Amino acid sequence: MNRFTKTALAAGALIALPQLGLAQEAEAAAPGFDEIGPYIMTTLLFCMAGFLVFFMAAGFAMLEGGLVRSKNVTMQMTKNIALYSIAAIMYWLIGFNTMYPGDFNGYFAIGGQTVLDAVGVSAADADLGYASIGSDFFFQLVFVAATASIVSGALAERIKLWPFLAFVVVLTGVMYPISGSWQWGGGWLSEAGFSDFAGSTVVHSVGGWAALAGAIVLGPRLGKYGKDGKVNPIPGSNLALATLGTFILWLGWFGFNGGSQLAMGTVGDVSDVSRIFANTNMAAAAGAVTALILTQVMYKKPDLTMVLNGALAGLVSITAEPLAPTLFGSLWIGAVGGIIVVLTVPMLDKFKIDDVVGAIPVHLFAGIWGTIAVVFYNSDANIATQLMGIIAYGVFTFVASLIVWFILKAVVGIRVGEEEEMNGLDVSELGMEAYPEFSKS
Amino acid sequence: MNRFTKTALAAGALIALPQLGLAQEAEAAAPGFDEIGPYIMTTLLFCMAGFLVFFMAAGFAMLEGGLVRSKNVTMQMTKNIALYSIAAIMYWLIGFNTMYPGDFNGYFAIGGQTVLDAVGVSAADADLGYASIGSDFFFQLVFVAATASIVSGALAERIKLWPFLAFVVVLTGVMYPISGSWQWGGGWLSEAGFSDFAGSTVVHSVGGWAALAGAIVLGPRLGKYGKDGKVNPIPGSNLALATLGTFILWLGWFGFNGGSQLAMGTVGDVSDVSRIFANTNMAAAAGAVTALILTQVMYKKPDLTMVLNGALAGLVSITAEPLAPTLFGSLWIGAVGGIIVVLTVPMLDKFKIDDVVGAIPVHLFAGIWGTIAVVFYNSDANIATQLMGIIAYGVFTFVASLIVWFILKAVVGIRVGEEEEMNGLDVSELGMEAYPEFSKS
Amino acid sequence: MNRFTKTALAAGALIALPQLGLAQEAEAAAPGFDEIGPYIMTTLLFCMAGFLVFFMAAGFAMLEGGLVRSKNVTMQMTKNIALYSIAAIMYWLIGFNTMYPGDFNGYFAIGGQTVLDAVGVSAADADLGYASIGSDFFFQLVFVAATASIVSGALAERIKLWPFLAFVVVLTGVMYPISGSWQWGGGWLSEAGFSDFAGSTVVHSVGGWAALAGAIVLGPRLGKYGKDGKVNPIPGSNLALATLGTFILWLGWFGFNGGSQLAMGTVGDVSDVSRIFANTNMAAAAGAVTALILTQVMYKKPDLTMVLNGALAGLVSITAEPLAPTLFGSLWIGAVGGIIVVLTVPMLDKFKIDDVVGAIPVHLFAGIWGTIAVVFYNSDANIATQLMGIIAYGVFTFVASLIVWFILKAVVGIRVGEEEEMNGLDVSELGMEAYPEFSKS
Repeated sequence: MNRFTKTALAAGALIALPQLGLAQEAEAAAPGFDEIGPYIMTTLLFCMAGFLVFFMAAGFAMLEGGLVRSKNVTMQMTKNIALYSIAAIMYWLIGFNTMYPGDFNGYFAIGGQTVLDAVGVSAADADLGYASIGSDFFFQLVFVAATASIVSGALAERIKLWPFLAFVVVLTGVMYPISGSWQWGGGWLSEAGFSDFAGSTVVHSVGGWAALAGAIVLGPRLGKYGKDGKVNPIPGSNLALATLGTFILWLGWFGFNGGSQLAMGTVGDVSDVSRIFANTNMAAAAGAVTALILTQVMYKKPDLTMVLNGALAGLVSITAEPLAPTLFGSLWIGAVGGIIVVLTVPMLDKFKIDDVVGAIPVHLFAGIWGTIAVVFYNSDANIATQLMGIIAYGVFTFVASLIVWFILKAVVGIRVGEEEEMNGLDVSELGMEAYPEFSKS
Repeated sequence: MNRFTKTALAAGALIALPQLGLAQEAEAAAPGFDEIGPYIMTTLLFCMAGFLVFFMAAGFAMLEGGLVRSKNVTMQMTKNIALYSIAAIMYWLIGFNTMYPGDFNGYFAIGGQTVLDAVGVSAADADLGYASIGSDFFFQLVFVAATASIVSGALAERIKLWPFLAFVVVLTGVMYPISGSWQWGGGWLSEAGFSDFAGSTVVHSVGGWAALAGAIVLGPRLGKYGKDGKVNPIPGSNLALATLGTFILWLGWFGFNGGSQLAMGTVGDVSDVSRIFANTNMAAAAGAVTALILTQVMYKKPDLTMVLNGALAGLVSITAEPLAPTLFGSLWIGAVGGIIVVLTVPMLDKFKIDDVVGAIPVHLFAGIWGTIAVVFYNSDANIATQLMGIIAYGVFTFVASLIVWFILKAVVGIRVGEEEEMNGLDVSELGMEAYPEFSKS
Repeated sequence: MNRFTKTALAAGALIALPQLGLAQEAEAAAPGFDEIGPYIMTTLLFCMAGFLVFFMAAGFAMLEGGLVRSKNVTMQMTKNIALYSIAAIMYWLIGFNTMYPGDFNGYFAIGGQTVLDAVGVSAADADLGYASIGSDFFFQLVFVAATASIVSGALAERIKLWPFLAFVVVLTGVMYPISGSWQWGGGWLSEAGFSDFAGSTVVHSVGGWAALAGAIVLGPRLGKYGKDGKVNPIPGSNLALATLGTFILWLGWFGFNGGSQLAMGTVGDVSDVSRIFANTNMAAAAGAVTALILTQVMYKKPDLTMVLNGALAGLVSITAEPLAPTLFGSLWIGAVGGIIVVLTVPMLDKFKIDDVVGAIPVHLFAGIWGTIAVVFYNSDANIATQLMGIIAYGVFTFVASLIVWFILKAVVGIRVGEEEEMNGLDVSELGMEAYPEFSKS
């Protein structure tokens, strides 16, 4: 925009009004910062937190791209940018208004398309107690995309592109908004007193349940589990990329948890946002260090992929309650997250559930842990209600996901052929290698 | 800075004044948030949007580095960090004051160096209706760097380093500021009613025209076009990197378009910024999904590089008017951008114009489309003036670029030798491979 | 958080109070934006600058991961995420309160754990003249992590993981906080008039001295220096990654320097923040361009790794005084930084000090230069005090680091065996390759 026009408009308004004898009315009409400051700050919070959480889409893509074999990297990139884009469209089309309906009954509803505030909305027409619709929509939208990203990692290296994207359509347009409305839409779980500040359950375990259902229906990758019960490790192709992805996710989590304060315009709110930043960071650090030490102790060698997942598990663990704990509380809650990942990754293998990137331990198991841990620092939460919420989200998402996966499997098939899987999805499904000049295989 | 000093200064001021009987004067002298709030918020907007757009330099570098062959990656990295740095210096030296002169005639001028506000500028000396000079300069500067980045991608893998950087000097110091002043400097196109909110034309098509001129003068890469008219695809070396670059650019675009609101200190302005975020995101998502579906339909296999460019084309398409459209408007405007990319990439090949990364379809063609699309949602714009602006920028930039490229070609030569090109610019021009341990070739 | 709860709470407060006849008291109790605005803005500054500086951890990881050989990349990733996490824990445990004790004597102290503001702290209980404790802690914490990252790069490819992390414990928990308190904690150097705005000395040269001590005790990599005195270049494995790391560091530096203004709630402060952004950017650009030109002149070919380090050296150079200089001042201060790097990298090789990524030239030598350069634009600084500060930090950090390194060497050994080094630390120490499908070696 032309800044001269902009400035002239503003100056013109200031100059013109007295000439018209409207100064007093204008003053009455233009509320001061005491009235509009909180709205401005909270809208800014959503924009800022929103772009941080948006960037988590890149974080997931890099993490997953680094943990799959090079022959499946193009596919993983394609899935990640596509799922984010589909989530953006579905959440606009029906998701947002399903999740946050004005007069929602808290169980099932299908909303209409999102309608933003008018251009240059006036203070009188804006929701001064909250924030602009655009900022709220954007902030919520990037959350649903994160949920879909979780699924993408677990099912990598053998799922077909289009059936996966069909699942994303249902997950982001229907399943996530419905269950999300139970809590964040002011539905029955919210009324029951369930507590999940930024989504250990609402986002992460939902993604984890959907991934678990998919991994069961899809089956493990060829060669992952030997006939003799042996588990064959399949190393990721690019651990620098996976590390970058983890750092990006960690960065995005400041927005994820900090933005979930949903307000930044008072001393208490902005201080709480900063408190959440400090706690979130501590939980991640504790998860990483714990996984580092634990893998050293258990396997005599630190395991970088466990350290990365330990940091992420720390983040997921603190997400249900990043505000109330002390820094020490965040440390041990995050540390338990790190322990969970190190112990449960091999456990999944025992059940021959092949989760390529460790998404189920990180997002589902640590998400459950984080939701339980709320009770230690938030006196408004109680363990019974927390468990009820965990179970409600689990049953709904797991069953609904199973149904969708089975339908997709029956109707179009969800798994590539054996030869396609051996050759890699990049060549067989997309005809395009990610590293055409590097790979040996 | 020492926070105790800082706090002591502030506390000292509060304590000392009453003792001196100056409290009332101080109060009169220190304007309240109703007066300074907008200035603070808008300055913050520019800083925040500025660092996001700065990061687009990394996005372009990664996108281009991923789409060239590994033998040219060091060169592409060198060009990208050098062009950003040169843009920063040239825009300070003459660009900013050429583009935004106080009493500019709107056609040609050469400004002097940028001078920032004084340290600790007082409210009385600041432009309270706008923002600090430093923030404005920084925000505008990162835009000009983006323009130069566009050129770098199109001409990759065969242009010499120094002639390319010489072109960047002219583009960022002279060409872009002059044409930019026509619109954003309050010049003749602005007065004529041309509308380009964040630069579909002023930035992106300018970069595209300069790239087109360069691609024509430079000629295609060896082996790209066979003698039989066959187009030989030359796959990029690292699609994970290209995907990362696209995500970084998408992230930066929130700053690019959001910051172009040029104000954040009122309910209307901050709401508009958030509206722009939501619309920008939607256009990108729509461009990506459209390219995904279209390449599936046309080629039976989705094409990741088209999906990445589809997202970018969606972003360019919405850049001329990211505020006025509804979310649905942003969706279809972005979708058309995605279609344009998929259809015009092969078209360029028919003319044997070798654009390595697809910069011309993305930035020039979608930029023209976005500038035209303004008329659908912004009633202040009309198609005749939009076309006039598109043509004015096109003729000026294309002709000026052709002249500069021809002069450079005649005087120093702009293309490396055949052997150098075959061996890759990294070894031949820089003596340094990007992946010395990986590459086969 | 449930936004309906949030809004209802706010609305409830507004509605309920008049009914209770408390409106007037509430108004009296709730301070307006003139009182709380600066606190909110400064807290936001720390959060925003904090996440930018946090991301520098990723920048260091990518830079170092790109400059080591592929056989040591997993180790470098492990070190970087571990050192950040350890720094976060140690700085909470003792660092922050050692560095910023309320009644500190300015020499030695061991603080206790960091305690954040209460949840939803009231304006009466908050430090309205500054910012929330959480935001301040977070911002300071990411600085200490940067210091440790500097060490990690210099000592790459031959140091054992656990002794390195033990050093990080001491550095981030004890050494950095003690010396940091001299200046930023209001200690003796601050009182003596030493000037170091954002840490050319307090952060960067401290990291550089610790790295230098480590590099001396550790010795050079096998094969780096031939018996005939020949220096064998050991090319980095991934220059795209190194470039990405540099761009991320550059991005983070806006937070590093901009946040060090420590205030954003007045016209002067926010303008100063933007001034710092513009100056920081200029110094980086100048450092990059200078290194580009200088390597072309000296070696006939531009050297990308020097350009990257030139940009970083420009950033380090301006860090001691990013506010006072003009843009031209920032340009030449940054340019000298670029010259220093190009000239001193070979110098270190003459002394057979093997600094894998050039951390000592960039952070120590340019840090010293930047600290001296303060006197050119900040009239409150004088050269004698600046040199005293440089020497004080140098002697303390170098001697303390030497002692710690020697103790670690004597007790557990700090260097891997020859065979382990030849095979790469990834396989020998971690049993996990970063690029299992790519590497030739």
